[in-house]
Amino acid sequence: MFTPEALAARLQRLATFSAPGAGVTRLVYDDAWCEAHRWLREEAAALGLAATCDAIGNLWFHDLGLPPGAEVIAVGSHLDTVVQGGRYDGPYGTIAGLMLAAEMRASGVPVAAFVTCEEEGSRFPASLTGVRGLLGQLVPSQLAALRDASGTTWGEALAMARERGCASALPAEGMPLAPLFRARRQLELHIEQGPVLEDSGETLGIVHRIAGYRRVRARLRGEARHAGTTPMDRRHDAFAAAAEIVLAAEALAREAGPPAVATAGFAHVAPGLFNVVPGECTLGLEVRHTKVEALARLADDLAARAQAIAQRRGVSLSVETESGEPPTPLSEELAAEAVALAKAQGISHRVMASGAGHDTMAFAQAGVPALMLFVPSRGGISHAPEEHSAPRDLWTGVVFARELLGRWALAPA
Amino acid sequence: MFTPEALAARLQRLATFSAPGAGVTRLVYDDAWCEAHRWLREEAAALGLAATCDAIGNLWFHDLGLPPGAEVIAVGSHLDTVVQGGRYDGPYGTIAGLMLAAEMRASGVPVAAFVTCEEEGSRFPASLTGVRGLLGQLVPSQLAALRDASGTTWGEALAMARERGCASALPAEGMPLAPLFRARRQLELHIEQGPVLEDSGETLGIVHRIAGYRRVRARLRGEARHAGTTPMDRRHDAFAAAAEIVLAAEALAREAGPPAVATAGFAHVAPGLFNVVPGECTLGLEVRHTKVEALARLADDLAARAQAIAQRRGVSLSVETESGEPPTPLSEELAAEAVALAKAQGISHRVMASGAGHDTMAFAQAGVPALMLFVPSRGGISHAPEEHSAPRDLWTGVVFARELLGRWALAPA
Repeated sequence: MFTPEALAARLQRLATFSAPGAGVTRLVYDDAWCEAHRWLREEAAALGLAATCDAIGNLWFHDLGLPPGAEVIAVGSHLDTVVQGGRYDGPYGTIAGLMLAAEMRASGVPVAAFVTCEEEGSRFPASLTGVRGLLGQLVPSQLAALRDASGTTWGEALAMARERGCASALPAEGMPLAPLFRARRQLELHIEQGPVLEDSGETLGIVHRIAGYRRVRARLRGEARHAGTTPMDRRHDAFAAAAEIVLAAEALAREAGPPAVATAGFAHVAPGLFNVVPGECTLGLEVRHTKVEALARLADDLAARAQAIAQRRGVSLSVETESGEPPTPLSEELAAEAVALAKAQGISHRVMASGAGHDTMAFAQAGVPALMLFVPSRGGISHAPEEHSAPRDLWTGVVFARELLGRWALAPA
Repeated sequence: MFTPEALAARLQRLATFSAPGAGVTRLVYDDAWCEAHRWLREEAAALGLAATCDAIGNLWFHDLGLPPGAEVIAVGSHLDTVVQGGRYDGPYGTIAGLMLAAEMRASGVPVAAFVTCEEEGSRFPASLTGVRGLLGQLVPSQLAALRDASGTTWGEALAMARERGCASALPAEGMPLAPLFRARRQLELHIEQGPVLEDSGETLGIVHRIAGYRRVRARLRGEARHAGTTPMDRRHDAFAAAAEIVLAAEALAREAGPPAVATAGFAHVAPGLFNVVPGECTLGLEVRHTKVEALARLADDLAARAQAIAQRRGVSLSVETESGEPPTPLSEELAAEAVALAKAQGISHRVMASGAGHDTMAFAQAGVPALMLFVPSRGGISHAPEEHSAPRDLWTGVVFARELLGRWALAPA
């Protein structure tokens, strides 16, 4: 059962649970998600594992005899995807967790697999909600009113999933979710989603920190004027100001050097006609860094440059923070142990940061010694139907994780 | 009847023919347009003028005895507006034309007023369609399939207007519209729509040329990648490339100096998320100049710079021409005559170019000696509810036009 073929077959099967369209679309509590949830529980049962879900639909796969509140080594990932995403972002760590829990359910410290219901924030504006529930940090009634794009609330969507057996009863009004197990250590297998490992030809990424990010909406307001009759020196062009800010963000990240990144992901220009100097522009800006101070400096420098650009152009600027996560260090001890093991096994590897956020952030922020393992992504592509990782690399990651977890299971607390 | 009060009252009344919403919205063949059309015909009748419409709804106001095919001095403007436009862009020249035709219907060469059905291109993608029909350059059946945003065809909309008495019978299939009169000279009164006269404190703009323009859609295609995991030096960001092109367009127009202008009016960024490096961006670019060669150079330089930017960034670029008009010289002789008259009358004035396109372009392109007169626009604002010109300036323009037309009417052919 613990074979590369079984891993590949389960990944292929999990990818079939999807809304119509290109790639895989499986949003929290939707039909595809509920069917995948049920299939995973059946797979766990077939492997002789208990599948226990919590009140928002997170899953644990564990030994049948393991009592609630037990200390476990937690390994897993998330079930949801982005819209028209790939087959590996989430599923790789999920299936790997299931297989590892089946293998190691009764090791010194038992290994239990977790599957978070929601990580991407693709349906509701609430990324990492699943794992925060898993860790007992969430009060479900506070989520209930969140709405998706079609107006359905979190509460309504969850109630439908619960009717289908994908969630247990909610706690009393105002009470937090109770975590089923206590994680002594935590591991997440994941595809890199970037080009670093493929470029370097290495098989394994040992992730010792996860970048934090800040997202802002910059709203620029100038003067909408006739594009034919308004001389260049009389313009207050909100979109031209935005363009300068886009390039300033790019330049700042380049000046700061890796792992700093800055992205302008969207612009809404109004009135949006050929023959009107744009009067308004809303710009979506994101900066990321793995260090707290460097992230703050990047965000502050960008805000200052944007303000200077707007002022010089006679355009008003207001900046509204959309969301953020702090840079999150993982366990240096566990990373060092993984490096030693990779060296001993002759697996080409690198210690690296994750630019993307992951469920593991929440474990680490909660004080659980945590680690991630990356395998290469072809072309660095993710969040797209073309997302791909070589079966051999996927399997190398799982086998390496089994070795590593074997050591963790025997380590003193 | 030929008083500033009558001018102001008619402008006020014409502004009441509008769809709901801010400002004035009167799109070709819509309810407000049909009602305004009818009101104008009634006003003409009250002034003792004939009101004759052609098969697409252009109007002529003229002496009852004037035979079809007669040579006239044509004075007028357009009836349609942009969405949520102002009270003066079109209406000023329209009402002035009506009043001047009433005053001068029987001067040496009779003055007749024209009202074009469509100039702005706000409902159908067909700006200057009215005047091109008026000049006999249009085959209506070739327009019939144009659609507005709601899917209504030009043919359907025109048929509804015809039922309401706002257009005469169509010519036989494939035949061009027949012009009712031959224009010996043409004059259009208009608001400036820019800030030049207000800035200089002058009352009258004598327009000797009209800028041409080129509009293109630049489609950039890079690589949509995860914004967290894709290092800055591995990106092919379509929106960052677009931002650089926006600033290049601005810089080129500034380098060229007035009257060159360049505008990036819109951008559509895909996928348009905070956490994805944009893979695609479509940019709307417009350049304008009053000289044919300078316009071509501006357009060519922008295309070359855009291509260089795209190439350096590893982003593909395709440029699709959306529309254009050539720079159009008006009559230098008529402009010189107007300058001499303004000097004689002590009216502060300047000879200037129009950055915006106007019905007059089509007359001049057809070889009719043509001239425009501008009056100041408050704040340079146009195509907006705030569009305003001082009643005294509006009246000065009409009185000046009467003097000028009086000379034209007596001039040898």
